[in-house]
Amino acid sequence: MREVFHQSLEDVQGRLVEIAELVTVAIDKATRAFGTSDVALAEEVIEADAVIDEKAIALDELAIEILARQQPVARDLRIVVSALRMSASLERMGDIAEHIAQLTRMRFPERAIPKGLKSTFLKMGELDVEVARQLAELLRTQDGELIDQIRNSDDRLDELHVSVFEKVLSDTWQGEAAATVDATLASRYHERFGDHAVSVAKKVAYLSTGDWTTSTDTIDVVTPSA
Amino acid sequence: MREVFHQSLEDVQGRLVEIAELVTVAIDKATRAFGTSDVALAEEVIEADAVIDEKAIALDELAIEILARQQPVARDLRIVVSALRMSASLERMGDIAEHIAQLTRMRFPERAIPKGLKSTFLKMGELDVEVARQLAELLRTQDGELIDQIRNSDDRLDELHVSVFEKVLSDTWQGEAAATVDATLASRYHERFGDHAVSVAKKVAYLSTGDWTTSTDTIDVVTPSA
Repeated sequence: MREVFHQSLEDVQGRLVEIAELVTVAIDKATRAFGTSDVALAEEVIEADAVIDEKAIALDELAIEILARQQPVARDLRIVVSALRMSASLERMGDIAEHIAQLTRMRFPERAIPKGLKSTFLKMGELDVEVARQLAELLRTQDGELIDQIRNSDDRLDELHVSVFEKVLSDTWQGEAAATVDATLASRYHERFGDHAVSVAKKVAYLSTGDWTTSTDTIDVVTPSA
Repeated sequence: MREVFHQSLEDVQGRLVEIAELVTVAIDKATRAFGTSDVALAEEVIEADAVIDEKAIALDELAIEILARQQPVARDLRIVVSALRMSASLERMGDIAEHIAQLTRMRFPERAIPKGLKSTFLKMGELDVEVARQLAELLRTQDGELIDQIRNSDDRLDELHVSVFEKVLSDTWQGEAAATVDATLASRYHERFGDHAVSVAKKVAYLSTGDWTTSTDTIDVVTPSA
């Protein structure tokens, strides 16, 4: 029974890694499409999100089947429950990649990146891709150093998120309302992407430390300062 | 054992209702504070969010204990797993109420509601409160009619969300960048609040119908049209 359980867990882990890799592809394409106004690439991301959703549902079904058939307790039970939560966060990360792609499509043939914020959003995009890669690697290897790297990337995303609002609310901002809306939404999407990655990373940390309370999502939103 | 299980489920249900009621209070205060620039009321919401977070964690712990001790299968198992998911959505709804309160505090003593959008945001606030009340009632009574009411309220929230972007992107919009940022963020918060309520309502629907696939969260975001 233990052996069956461990095979099931390996299956769960493999599927989490697979979804994280699909999310990495999605955010890479979405942020490249956003940066270059590549509407065909944006469409690819929008279409591919259904695959991430399906794989998340299939993983949830597998987790529920493991709960029903193998009735794990203690740490084993928490691993399976954590997998359910990680799958929900990864699915949301896929949604966010899709939202960034939708912004790109909506503004086409105009550029979705507001003037004056190009380098900021390119950097945010790179950090999102980095965070997704680190997360897939963390899920594969359980290497705790990656948790700190993900937190660091998320901190830099938060700083850039604040800097977007500083720019938009400064006297030098020349953007029209559409540019202000795009900057606000896109920045929030990028920042939330990092939050979800940290949320998944914390669950991996929990599984090593057993400290459940640190794994809940009470991350403060970074809101614009006046 | 069945009787113990059903007592446990009643406990879970009671706690879901309690959290939904706290969320109702939070969104009611947050949207009133937002409408009247009442910073003291906003502070109350921000402080009280920790209580919602704690109660969500306690509910999750109870659900995991039920899984470990009573090892439910089939429909019973899905009820407990659904409770874990509903608790996560309710916790997010509390976070959103807090974000609306934070916007109010950040702009104080200025008004957080952008000029020209007062009636729209008052209506969105009323709909959010209505949706939260309907959700608490649904969790208490499992009355399926409430599911349709929640969907209807959410549809109206989505329409108002689109109308905010139409307003902000129209030629008549006179708001400065800060007003545009506030309108964008606040409108998105209100709209997401409704989405989470629908997500919880779908899980209640699933528990009546057994159709699990309809309960996943694949709600499209409503994004601004150019």
